[in-house]
Amino acid sequence: MSPHPALEPLPLVRIAVDCMGGDHGPSVTLPACRAFLERHPAAELVLVGTADALAAASGLPRTRCVVASEVVAMDDPVEVALRKKRDSSMRVAIGQIKLADPAMAAHACVSAGNTGALMAVSRYLLKTFDGIDRPAIAALLPNARGRFTKVLDLGANVDCSAEHLLQFAVMGSALVSALDGLEEPTVGLLNIGEETIKGSETIKRAGELLRAAHAGGHINFHGNVEGNDIFKGTTDLVVCDGFVGNVALKTSEGLAGMLSQMIKEEFTRSAWTKLAALVAMPVLNRFKARVDHRRYSGGALLGLRGLVFKAHGSSDALAFETALARAYDAARNRLLDRVHHRIAETLQAMPSGDTAAPQAA
Amino acid sequence: MSPHPALEPLPLVRIAVDCMGGDHGPSVTLPACRAFLERHPAAELVLVGTADALAAASGLPRTRCVVASEVVAMDDPVEVALRKKRDSSMRVAIGQIKLADPAMAAHACVSAGNTGALMAVSRYLLKTFDGIDRPAIAALLPNARGRFTKVLDLGANVDCSAEHLLQFAVMGSALVSALDGLEEPTVGLLNIGEETIKGSETIKRAGELLRAAHAGGHINFHGNVEGNDIFKGTTDLVVCDGFVGNVALKTSEGLAGMLSQMIKEEFTRSAWTKLAALVAMPVLNRFKARVDHRRYSGGALLGLRGLVFKAHGSSDALAFETALARAYDAARNRLLDRVHHRIAETLQAMPSGDTAAPQAA
Repeated sequence: MSPHPALEPLPLVRIAVDCMGGDHGPSVTLPACRAFLERHPAAELVLVGTADALAAASGLPRTRCVVASEVVAMDDPVEVALRKKRDSSMRVAIGQIKLADPAMAAHACVSAGNTGALMAVSRYLLKTFDGIDRPAIAALLPNARGRFTKVLDLGANVDCSAEHLLQFAVMGSALVSALDGLEEPTVGLLNIGEETIKGSETIKRAGELLRAAHAGGHINFHGNVEGNDIFKGTTDLVVCDGFVGNVALKTSEGLAGMLSQMIKEEFTRSAWTKLAALVAMPVLNRFKARVDHRRYSGGALLGLRGLVFKAHGSSDALAFETALARAYDAARNRLLDRVHHRIAETLQAMPSGDTAAPQAA
Repeated sequence: MSPHPALEPLPLVRIAVDCMGGDHGPSVTLPACRAFLERHPAAELVLVGTADALAAASGLPRTRCVVASEVVAMDDPVEVALRKKRDSSMRVAIGQIKLADPAMAAHACVSAGNTGALMAVSRYLLKTFDGIDRPAIAALLPNARGRFTKVLDLGANVDCSAEHLLQFAVMGSALVSALDGLEEPTVGLLNIGEETIKGSETIKRAGELLRAAHAGGHINFHGNVEGNDIFKGTTDLVVCDGFVGNVALKTSEGLAGMLSQMIKEEFTRSAWTKLAALVAMPVLNRFKARVDHRRYSGGALLGLRGLVFKAHGSSDALAFETALARAYDAARNRLLDRVHHRIAETLQAMPSGDTAAPQAA
């Protein structure tokens, strides 16, 4: 990777917020915005929502309000968000990134709305970078090293080609650089074995492309990783097909839910175990805080000509604030410029899209 | 599903054991066999291993020993197991299923050896049922309902067609029937959303085939499920591509490992937390016992004309004994006849393999 162009942190970061998105809407997003502003003195917010909802936001510092007349429901089909509700809070919030006046334009947008709609509207309004066929969703998962493994794609794309997986590796590397300050993050290709002969034809070919990109100095490719490596933290970044990534993420959520239910059952089984629970409470609470999924809320939509972050639909105020903080860090450390720079460096020297590609040596 | 033919439990079950397989070989398999025989008075074992190893097995009741001169190593390529080591303990143990004399032939075989080799040798010696293109590996995962969700395929097949997923549903239903006594187990198709429009073209078409099989009374298809449904226990059975299943399983192992490491760290942080650990120990131990992966050891290779069970390579004696008990239950409840019957009923009325198939209504 050649040295980045000047990537000084932004002195001020302005974030557009879709206040109506998510299962709870303004009752969660507005308190989250208030807490976020208190902790981020160099941040400004552009709150987008219905006039009613925004009334409750008066008095917030460093905040501009923009009224939108419509709301994308969590179960609205993509077509409705895209073609019918043209004055939705989601769409208007994303549009704030595109404002011509740099004193007004947002550096990033955050929404807890419907994922499919957010992806479609973002793609329509912002467009993708040259060389990127499809945007991807990257998430942060806690790992045994006390850091976060970045994983993409998590559901935006099913049936990815080898070239898409290469694009994910390039964009994800930029994400790790922006969030963690690592300029050469390690990249793992999710597979069913470490050997290069494992996996489907697409995966094997993706391995070839990633090795070629590594040889060219564009990414730091570690090799194949397996499912358990995500939580071990074997690599900083794990790339996979959106179907596989979505299943891995949801399976993990299911397992975590089952284990926490079982711990609860065991500690409430009898008077004695309840006493043990009282004694163990501070320790269990520390444990719970470490694995609290609200601490790693905020998926990044990568590949677009603008930064959009997705908070979980069921976010509470802490989870939504985490997503705001993630968008702030990414924008402040110029994630968009980093993605653009890496794509230009790597993909112009490498195949992209569905074009025929030379075989790696 | 039409009523099964007479499926009375077998009065006596004979299991062939590859004593040399796994990371620990006879030091684990022989104690496991001893414990298993004590708990299963209607079981007989055929122990297969080197003469040296089997010397330690003398004195075991209801046991016959068969000497094999070779051992398939955990890292042997499939070709070596298949073509070079023709007198391996793995191969000889599987061969015990094929003996012509019913007073000698084993009803099932258990090995902790190399998965790829076990699958290849089993397939070569036993062959698949008509209508089954590829055998699959099914595992049991604990769920929040206190039962086990059966999941297949877990790595034997990457790039499955819709017809393969139907075959997995049929074979897996037989497995649930044999192990849990449920004649109409519910089947879920692993996907990235519950709606029928979700997923790849293969998954959508698999959904059509599964709905048609449901309409024909051959399986009890619940619909799409997501990753979190595996541990929730939403359906008795979950079918998926071997790549996706392997990633989901390994990701779960990684998460469980990270969580148990974190709990340990929190409880050993200071003198005070160590005291709390002492008090909480009985409760934590009960919890650990519930999620102990050794309690659900034993993957079934399905689709073959013989029952083969795979224990985890790293099995200790308890895990290997669990795999023996699983094979015993399956053989006793005539899993092979059930699979055969269900395949004949379903697949003769339905498409199989890569042949063109009528669209479901």
